[in-house]
This record gives sequence, structure tokens and C-alpha cells, in this order.
Amino acid sequence: MTLGIGLIGTGFMGKAHALAWRNARAVLGTAPEVRLELLCDTPADKATGFASQFGFARSTDDWRALVTDPKVDIVSITTPNRFHKEMALAALAAGKHVWCEKPMGLTLADGEAMAAAAAASGKTTMVGYNYIRNPAFRHAQKLVEAGRIGRLVHVRGIVDEDYQADPDLAWTWRARLEEAGLGTLGDLGCHLVSMLTGLCGPIESLVADMQTVHTTRPLPDGSGRGAVENEDTATALLRFASGVHGSLSTSRSAWGRKNRLGFELHGTKGMLVFDQERMNELQLYVNEGPKAEQGFRTILSGPEHGVYGAFCPAPGHQVGFNDLKVIEAAELLTAITTGTRPHPDFAAALEFERVIHGIAESARTGQRVVLG
Amino acid sequence: MTLGIGLIGTGFMGKAHALAWRNARAVLGTAPEVRLELLCDTPADKATGFASQFGFARSTDDWRALVTDPKVDIVSITTPNRFHKEMALAALAAGKHVWCEKPMGLTLADGEAMAAAAAASGKTTMVGYNYIRNPAFRHAQKLVEAGRIGRLVHVRGIVDEDYQADPDLAWTWRARLEEAGLGTLGDLGCHLVSMLTGLCGPIESLVADMQTVHTTRPLPDGSGRGAVENEDTATALLRFASGVHGSLSTSRSAWGRKNRLGFELHGTKGMLVFDQERMNELQLYVNEGPKAEQGFRTILSGPEHGVYGAFCPAPGHQVGFNDLKVIEAAELLTAITTGTRPHPDFAAALEFERVIHGIAESARTGQRVVLG
Amino acid sequence: MTLGIGLIGTGFMGKAHALAWRNARAVLGTAPEVRLELLCDTPADKATGFASQFGFARSTDDWRALVTDPKVDIVSITTPNRFHKEMALAALAAGKHVWCEKPMGLTLADGEAMAAAAAASGKTTMVGYNYIRNPAFRHAQKLVEAGRIGRLVHVRGIVDEDYQADPDLAWTWRARLEEAGLGTLGDLGCHLVSMLTGLCGPIESLVADMQTVHTTRPLPDGSGRGAVENEDTATALLRFASGVHGSLSTSRSAWGRKNRLGFELHGTKGMLVFDQERMNELQLYVNEGPKAEQGFRTILSGPEHGVYGAFCPAPGHQVGFNDLKVIEAAELLTAITTGTRPHPDFAAALEFERVIHGIAESARTGQRVVLG
Amino acid sequence: MTLGIGLIGTGFMGKAHALAWRNARAVLGTAPEVRLELLCDTPADKATGFASQFGFARSTDDWRALVTDPKVDIVSITTPNRFHKEMALAALAAGKHVWCEKPMGLTLADGEAMAAAAAASGKTTMVGYNYIRNPAFRHAQKLVEAGRIGRLVHVRGIVDEDYQADPDLAWTWRARLEEAGLGTLGDLGCHLVSMLTGLCGPIESLVADMQTVHTTRPLPDGSGRGAVENEDTATALLRFASGVHGSLSTSRSAWGRKNRLGFELHGTKGMLVFDQERMNELQLYVNEGPKAEQGFRTILSGPEHGVYGAFCPAPGHQVGFNDLKVIEAAELLTAITTGTRPHPDFAAALEFERVIHGIAESARTGQRVVLG
Repeated sequence: MTLGIGLIGTGFMGKAHALAWRNARAVLGTAPEVRLELLCDTPADKATGFASQFGFARSTDDWRALVTDPKVDIVSITTPNRFHKEMALAALAAGKHVWCEKPMGLTLADGEAMAAAAAASGKTTMVGYNYIRNPAFRHAQKLVEAGRIGRLVHVRGIVDEDYQADPDLAWTWRARLEEAGLGTLGDLGCHLVSMLTGLCGPIESLVADMQTVHTTRPLPDGSGRGAVENEDTATALLRFASGVHGSLSTSRSAWGRKNRLGFELHGTKGMLVFDQERMNELQLYVNEGPKAEQGFRTILSGPEHGVYGAFCPAPGHQVGFNDLKVIEAAELLTAITTGTRPHPDFAAALEFERVIHGIAESARTGQRVVLG
Repeated sequence: MTLGIGLIGTGFMGKAHALAWRNARAVLGTAPEVRLELLCDTPADKATGFASQFGFARSTDDWRALVTDPKVDIVSITTPNRFHKEMALAALAAGKHVWCEKPMGLTLADGEAMAAAAAASGKTTMVGYNYIRNPAFRHAQKLVEAGRIGRLVHVRGIVDEDYQADPDLAWTWRARLEEAGLGTLGDLGCHLVSMLTGLCGPIESLVADMQTVHTTRPLPDGSGRGAVENEDTATALLRFASGVHGSLSTSRSAWGRKNRLGFELHGTKGMLVFDQERMNELQLYVNEGPKAEQGFRTILSGPEHGVYGAFCPAPGHQVGFNDLKVIEAAELLTAITTGTRPHPDFAAALEFERVIHGIAESARTGQRVVLG
Repeated sequence: MTLGIGLIGTGFMGKAHALAWRNARAVLGTAPEVRLELLCDTPADKATGFASQFGFARSTDDWRALVTDPKVDIVSITTPNRFHKEMALAALAAGKHVWCEKPMGLTLADGEAMAAAAAASGKTTMVGYNYIRNPAFRHAQKLVEAGRIGRLVHVRGIVDEDYQADPDLAWTWRARLEEAGLGTLGDLGCHLVSMLTGLCGPIESLVADMQTVHTTRPLPDGSGRGAVENEDTATALLRFASGVHGSLSTSRSAWGRKNRLGFELHGTKGMLVFDQERMNELQLYVNEGPKAEQGFRTILSGPEHGVYGAFCPAPGHQVGFNDLKVIEAAELLTAITTGTRPHPDFAAALEFERVIHGIAESARTGQRVVLG
Repeated sequence: MTLGIGLIGTGFMGKAHALAWRNARAVLGTAPEVRLELLCDTPADKATGFASQFGFARSTDDWRALVTDPKVDIVSITTPNRFHKEMALAALAAGKHVWCEKPMGLTLADGEAMAAAAAASGKTTMVGYNYIRNPAFRHAQKLVEAGRIGRLVHVRGIVDEDYQADPDLAWTWRARLEEAGLGTLGDLGCHLVSMLTGLCGPIESLVADMQTVHTTRPLPDGSGRGAVENEDTATALLRFASGVHGSLSTSRSAWGRKNRLGFELHGTKGMLVFDQERMNELQLYVNEGPKAEQGFRTILSGPEHGVYGAFCPAPGHQVGFNDLKVIEAAELLTAITTGTRPHPDFAAALEFERVIHGIAESARTGQRVVLG
């Protein structure tokens, strides 16, 4: 029996989900067949157009119709963040599995409500943390688990983009707490949390600082300037339950950075370095062999790394951003068909959100925030 | 009216074609709908399995049935090189459009026969030169055409992999002239020709050298060693009709190189550098602005570059190898529906093959070879 | 009238000072002549040997004799940190100019005493912050001052080495607070402070965390394990008086890092990135020109950058570590002969030490430390 | 007994020699003491000024007086190329050891005359091939000799700068065959030959091409345009006596390249890559260990590499361009005092020049040139 897909949203992430659904089985082989059943966007003709382009059987401009459609088994939620909670709750209530883009909601309470609903529903949920699907990242995890760099001691993570770097950019809803919630922490920082905790385990406590670089922006109607209510940068000192210390820093106003999501992971035997802007490369240093030959080596992703080979049997040929979503969709499908929990489901993703909201809280209060 | 696709082969390139056909319209929007009609491989159950995985309606183990199938409009040929000619000729004879992987055949005569058949058929043909679809490469071409680096004067190209670097690798048919034709020139070198001529125009003459690094290899049955009849490396001094001088070098025995396909293009005002192992980056140096601030800049691919934005609206998020094939498929579809010639069709691709066969000839004779 | 040089110490920094004194005038031209008058080390024959090698006229094993020697005008102090204060105070008391290696002493009180003595003496003092002499760094400062990257908003600095990364390394005096003072903050962190404040101005307050990665080490006599009393890593959240926010992180246990001293400096118009492991390169991104051509550019140091041209008139040929000390020596000489203050003199260097001791204090207390 | 140094020339290389003489013993320890005896330049006051700056005891504007001065034991020749032969012959005739900058002369006959005179004189000679002194390069040689990358099979070398890239640059004597001899081959190409033959042994034969990018340049007096008589670029296909095949390419008109002198050396077990623009890094790939962890490693120069430790005991701190000349001077001094031959003496350097003149000849005639 095939699974029917309902997709809400057709923007950046909407398209990524559509492509992921189209390709999960073709690429991975193991994933079950899916039917691209129903696509929702507004207005209706936009939905119709994208349904045709993406290959969905039907379209609608009513997301409530989508989440209750009897032929839809899985709902992909890719709308702006402020709609996530309501849609996810409705989909779960209608007995659907849910794949929701990150962050879960605008507030920690949103996430908590979603996780509670997921737990109550018995359905499979997943939040769209695509970067942890990368074969290079998975290989980093494998090397860590195998003790290849020894005991972990320190980690530094950065995630930067420059989409809010321009001082002359017009004010948008992204600047409002009520509509956007967190700033760079919600857009970018949570991705880094998914990586750092995927390497070092849960974060125990943190101290943080935040900054709004551009405190006002010109209103689009020319009527003056609007306040920017959320953070452009945030940095935190982290302590992990495992004893690892580290830091996390994020900026949406970092000129020149387009997807600078990376880490340095220090162990007692070596170091791992990764940067998403070169997503097919992993840097590894190990203290072994003659000192005169030691150095960071650049490992190009290839079929020896995770599911890379399902995309291409030749090393160095490179997976791209959309391929990460293909892996993600396949993992959700596998979880649904095997009755296991994909990572991160709503419960696990809530823990990521506790971190970013904890950072914001610490930055506001100036106090150390203890998590979990 | 939709176009029906017939795909022969399910290996590295077979899968790449399948994914390309699945995604061309969904990604690019402009491409017409296609039907994944018929897939061929042997044995029959392999064909059936991949038809299911890739989403083809039917399967067969008889490629002749495929090329004459009435519901098939376009034939994708992704089999080993020695089958290309026969299949392409049969498909053209059956009135099909043909997308054939490179190189066209084992000998220049193969290519000439294919180009002649294509011309006679009036059908649309294309050869699978995927690397020239890369938005970064297309942007390099655009910069060149805009005169951004001035008059072109010199170019150096390299394409290396290491799949034949290991001296202990067993002998295969790849080592036989009769079955494989050229060695690294056919596998890798022709891709570089597609790039260099795409930047500097046609090559007028050349002088070359070749080398078989591992002259024998252990026979798989343990009965001794078999001769390697084709080249592991080849290097040529090039003169382009435009007056550009340059060089091309290729090796399939270059340890550590996984897809090192790149060039340095020297102009009178600047330089462009590209390496496929970092396929989302283009290096540009322009002699402008204060000397103290000049330097090679790393341009990360983004929506400003060609069709990148159709894959992802955010810069630096990266396209991957399979995405190049999606672009390629879309270009073929556009050519078919608009009655234009895609690049490179069999006639244009033949010119690339003249270069690699010219290199082999010059290396054998020690004489300059004049092309065209 | 030439200036007579007295050098105490012949290790890493001792040799660097000796070479700096030998070359300041030959390279820079503007520096006055110096006489390599007296060299001190113990035992006496070591001093004699190095005096001969480095070209000093005389040698001694008594540093007190050196600092009072009538032919000595400037004293270079390159001994282990715990001797700095006593030697500097004696040299100042004897009316000598002093060039002392960093950090000034083991405690903040040491530094305060030294700065007070310097102020009282009227002599010229300088602390050995060599990395801020680098033409690439100076050019970064110049670009900042010229507003090339706009208003500064964020900065991240890292300085890592791996000389204490090996868990099996024997215990030494470096692990003792009483003998070594701070750990990585004193060895490495203060260099980063010299850079970050050189770019962003004084630091106003900070919150920090520290970590001892290897809490005990095997005693060299095999009698068990000794405690490591000072920090292997330290990380701080910084707020600068200028409004810049940022972070600083340092580790002496970072495998693979040999001299990873660098920063990312975020401005409202661009970004500057530097890494001492590629000390002849500066990365600059500026939001100007077509988006499609923007990227980080790698500026190779050349004669357009500071005093690079005094070393070599050709760009890209590279200055090395010892060259930084040559520049430093020349700056001290210029300051002495012109009666100006070199940077950093004891007073200015004390401000750097306030930062590293402030980091240690914040890490111990868990409280924000306000400086200045 | 100390050796007296006479230096002719005070430009780029003159200063480099002066600094090398000042530092060889201080850095390396093993080199004997030298006296900076006599410096020659014109006019006389320029010589006086530089003698003072560089620390030479006396100065002259008459190079013939210098080469016959009884207190001079070694003559450094750093004048424009067209003076090398006459000065070297005179110095050898006067019984001096000679350190001459490369290339030896304008023609191969110049070099032959110099090598013959050197052989007849019994004095020690050396030509200034500084890049092969680099600890990173020496380590590459050591790795090759130890078989670390297996049997050598292929090599590609490039040496590029951009000092003649600007089309608007005025015509100078550098453009004249009679005054400058070869173009980029003499300036840059011979350095690459010193490296490639230092790795792969002597070159047996070659085929080459050359190009003058800017065939005329504006005359400095504004009276029109003068012809550029020598080559801006040259590229050769090389066959080494060892069986290695390869290529060499050089341009003095390569925008953005400041000292791009490097190679890729392909062996049956691995690869070595070097680029002088990152002169403290060596890239090594070895086919060993798990495939999933293989990659090019960046080895930062440190005390494990050749004489690096004499400059600095800490890895990653970096030697610079002038340090290469210090090593070179020390090697010459060691050769003189031990009665051994430094590398390359005039005889060995003549072999390098046979290669660059062979390249020019092959480019002119279109024929393969057999060397040796």
C-alpha cells in the first residue's frame, strides 16, 4: 500500500519537500512508493500550477481540507513558522503523519504543544533538520562513535548567512517577535544545535549574548522605519552533559556567508572540522603516524560515506542541498513503515528548541540557563 | 502531448538519467511533462526491479524492443561505450530522439557514423556532457563573453580521477582498445574538451603525449597478467582558432583525485579558475580597484547564476552532481519542443571526439595534428 | 650614536629577538644601528656559544650584570614568564629600555607593577606582541579604519595550538599556577586580545568559561601523576566599548592546530577574515559590485601592504614568523629615537592582560567581569 | 678564518643576499662566520648608503674592484642577467667563490662558458635557486626518496606571476632578447625546472609551445610602441630519463598569480602537491588506511621538516621568502668549508638552463628536443 502525500507550501522548502517525495524511492531504493496526492497553496491557481509542476494529483487552497483529506497519509508543512503549530496539530488530530519544517513554532510553548500532540497521536512526526542527513556529517558521527578522535573535549559551532546583512533592506514580518519568533536562532541556530548535539550529546547549561545589528529598518511603504525586535546574532558558551565544553555562534548579518554552518570538534586524539559551504568535505586530523606527515586531511564524500552511493557510485561527484531532503524523506518513510522513530521527531526537536530559547533567555537575563 | 522516455541501462549514468527525467519539469518548471515509459536492462528481473524503483511504467530486457516501442519518443543510452553506436543508430532509424552518454563510440568513425545518422534523421540528439550545465560553469562563460577577464590568451585544463591508480586492480575490459576504445581520454578527457572549447572556441591543432602507467594488470581468473592497451594519462599542447594557447592533461591514475575537472583561464584583464571537486565555486581575479585589495575571489553559486535558483533560492546551498543531469534533460526537452539544437548534439559532440582522438594520434605519431 | 643591546635568553624567543636585532636596520633602513653588546644565558658556556652564533660581542651567565651593563641601552627579556617581572623592574631601575616577551608576568599584579615601574622610569618599554606587526594584519586595520567593511558589529577570534593536546605528555612546570600562571590564556590568548582590541578597541566586559582537558599528567620521574592547575581551553563572550559583540576562544590542546590565530570581523558592509597559519593572506568580502561576482577574495601580502616591501618587492613571496619580530624591533627603535610610545608599551600591554585575567576570573566565579 | 663577502647589486636579490649573509650563521649555527666586506652598486653614494644599511664594511661603484678585492672571498652577483657572465668569469678568474643569481646568462652559450670557467677555476660556485631550499620542498624530496608515494609516474608543474600581465605596462629592456634573453622561461621557468628535476631526475626530451601575449608595448617616451621579443608564456611536454612523463607551464602574464610555483607529483601509491604561494604547506595523499578516511592532508612546515627548526622550534609559525636565501647561503658556506659541491653549482645549473633553452628551441622549430 502506498502512502499519500499532502504538501502545504511551495516556496524554498515546499519545493524541497516536493523533490524529496519524488525521489526518495528512486534514489534510495528502500523507501516505499508514495503518491503525490494533494498540494496546498494560496491562491488556488498558484496551487494548481505547482501541483502540475511538482506532479501532485490534486491541489487546494484550503490547508484544512488537505490535512483531513482521506487520501493523504503524510502532511509536509513548509509554510512560514507562525503557521506550523496550528497545521501540525490539525494534521495530527486528523490522524496524519507530519513532516514539519524547523523551527517548530514561534515560542517554546508552541513546540511543547506540538510534541505533546505528537506523543498523544501515536503518529510519526519529524522536523526538517536536513543538514544532519549529509553523508559527510553522518561519517563525522561515525568517526566520533568509533573513537577516532578520542574523548571529545571541546566543540565550536558557527552558522552564518548574510540575508539580513544589508542595512538598507526593508523591514518585514521577520523582524517581529510575534510573527517570526526568534531571529537568527530560529532560522539558523537550531540547525547548528542539531549538529552539535548529534556529535556531543545533550547540552546541560549555557550562558549567552545576543545582538540586534540593525535595530530599525525602512518600512516598505516609505512611512519611516520599523523596529527589529529579534536578534541578528547570538553566541553562547555551552556545557554538554558529556563534559564537553564549547560555543555556538550564529548571525544572519554576516556578509559573504551563504550557508556557513560548521563546527570544529576537538578530541584527545584528533579533530574534525566541517563547513556546509563545502558540504562534500570533511576535515580530519588524527595524531598518528610520523609527526612529519600529520596534517588535516580533506575527505571528499564518496560511496564509503553513508548513503552517498545511492546518489552516485563515484566519489567526489557531490551531493547537493536537495539531496539532503531526499535522505530525510526516505528516513521518515522508513520510520513510518517500520514503526520506529525518525530523528528528530517532535520530542527530539523540542530539545533543540529548548536550546535556542535558552540562549535567548540567557541573553536577556544575563544568567546561566540550565536545560533539561 | 507528453513525451515518452525509454531508458537503456541502470548503472551510474542510467540512474542519473532516470532521476533527471523524474525532475526536469518539477525543478525547472519550463520543461514539458514526460512519461517514464520503458526501461531496459538485463536480465529481465533487474529491469523490472529498476523500473519499479525509478518509476518507469514498463520494463524489457530487449533494447531493440525499446528503441522501436511506439510509446517511446526519446531514448536515453547509458550502456557501456561499445554499445552506443548500434543503439543510437537503431533509435534514430526508429524515429526517436536520442540522449547518448559520452563518448559517442570507441573510434572516431563511430562518432562520424552517429553524427551522419543524426543529421539524416532530423531527430534531436544530445550527448551527455553534464559538467557544462553547471551554473558555475555557465557563469564563467557569461563572464568571458562579457569581456570580464579581457581577451583570452591562455588556458590550462586538467581532469583527473584515481579509479585506475591502484597497481593491483584487476584487468578488465576497460583496458582493451576493442572494447573500451580510448582510456582516460574517452572517460574523462572529452569532458574537459567540452569545457575548454565552451570557453575558448574550437581547437585548431595540438601536439600530445600519452602514457600507460600500469602496462599490465592481474587477470581476474588468476591466470597471469593482461596487457593494458589504452592510455592512463594524456597531455596535449593546444592551439585554439581564437589564438588562445593552452594545455589539457588527464589521468585516470591520479591518486586522491575523485573528480578533479578544472581549468585556469587567463585573460588580459583577469583570470577564472574552476574545479569540479568544488563545483559550487568559481574563482575570479580581475585587475580592478586598488592593488592592495586585489585577490582571487571565491564566488559561491547562487540564484544569480544560471538556473541555480530553480534548485534553491538561497545562495551557497549547493547543487550536486545529479542536478547537472536534471538541467541537461531539461535542455534536451526544450530543444525538442522548440525545434532548436541542444548543445552538444551529435555533430557538436563529434568535434569533441575529434580532439581526444587527435590527441591519441599525435601521441602515437609524435606529430602535430591539425583539426577541423 | 648606536644603541647597545642586551639579550636575556636564547630559546625560541631569544633567537627571534637576536635575529630581529640583527636585521631591523638592514631590512627597514629607517632603524638606527644597534650594537649586539651582551647576551645572557646559563650556564656560561651556553651563553658564550650563542653569543658567538648570534653575533653578540660578550656573554654572561648573570642577568643582573646584563641589566646594569653600561654599554647596554635596551634589554630584551625572553626568559620563562616567571622571571619577567624581576628582570624588567631591574632593567628599568638601571635606566634601560625594555623589550619584554608576553605575557608580562604570572599575575595581573605582576603586570601592574611592571607598568607602574615603566611609567616611573621614563624609559621606553614594549611587550612582544609580534602578530600585530604582520603587514596583512596592519592592512586589515587600515581597511577597518577606512570604513571598508562599514560599521563593525561582530568579531570572533580563535587561537589554538596542540602542544598540550597529547594526553601522554609528561607533567611540567607549565601546569603549575605558581610557575606558569595562566595556561592557554597566557601563552596564546593574549595574542588574540592584542589583535581583537587592535581592530575593535577596548573590551568593556565579558563572561567566560574554562576547561582543563587533561587534569593530570604523568610525572617525569615516573612517580605517579601530577595535577594540571591551569586551563587548557578558555572561551569568552566579549562586549567592546565600541558596541561590537564577539567571542574569543583558545586552546592549547587542539590537535592539528599549530598556530591557528585568527578572526572573523563582521561589518555592516563586509567581512575580514584572517588566519595566522596562512599569515600572508587576508580574506575580504565587500558588498559591492554585481551580486553574481561577490565573494571572499584572498589578498596575498605584497608591497602595497605595510612594510612588506622592505622584505621583498614582489608580492606573494611571503614574510615569515621571524620577520614579524624584525618589524617589532624596528618599531621599538623608532619609538626610542623619536621619543614616542611603541605599541604596546607596558601600560597598553597591561590592558591585554586585564582581559585574560578577567576571563579567568569570570570562568572561576561564573559572573560577568567588567573591565577598565 | 672568516670568509669575506663581496656583494654586487642591491635590488630585490641584492638585499636578499645581504640578509642571507647576515643570518646564515646566526640561524643555522653550523655556518662559519663571514665578514660583510664590500658592496658594489652605482652610483657610489647608493653603494655607500646600502653598505651602511646592510652592514657592509666598505662600498664601491666598480664591480671589477670588488671581484679582485683581496679581502673578498665570495662574490654574490645579483645584477641584471646580462651582466652575470662577465662578472662571474672575472670573479672566478680572480680566485673567488661565486654565488650568482639565476638564470646564469642570456644564452645557453653564456651558461656553458660560466660552467667551463667554474670547472677550470676549482672554486665553489652556486646559482640562486632558492625555492628548492624550502623545508617543505626538501620534505617532498625525502618522501619521494622514501617511496612514500610509490614509483613516480607523472608530474605537472606551473610557475606563474602577473608582473607582465597588464597590457598597458610600458616597454622595457625585459622585452628584448639581446638584453633580457628569454622571457618567462628565464625569470620563472628555470625555478620550476630546478624543482621538477629535483623530484624526478633529468629531463630527456621535450616538445613545447610559446606565446607572446602582448606583442608590443607602449614606449616609455611616448614615441609609439616597441616590440616584445621574448615569450610571455611557455608550455612543454616533458619526458624524464626515469620514465616519468609530465608538463611544465609558465606565464609572466597570469593575472592574480604572485608566485604560483608548484607541482603535482603522481606516484603509484600517492600524490604530492605543492604551491609556493602557500610555501609552508605540503599536500600529501597516500593510498593507505580505510578508503573512507583517505584525503589530501595539508602538512604545515615544522621542526620535523629539514632545517625549519633552526628558524623556529614551533610548527606552523612559518618561514618566509628571505629565509630560503639564508638556507642557500649556509649551504654554500658549508660546501666551501667542507670542499663539497653545493647544489646547483654552475655545472648543475647549466642543465636547468638547457631545459629552458630547449623549450624555446622546440617552440621555435616545432620539433622534439632531446637533451643531454
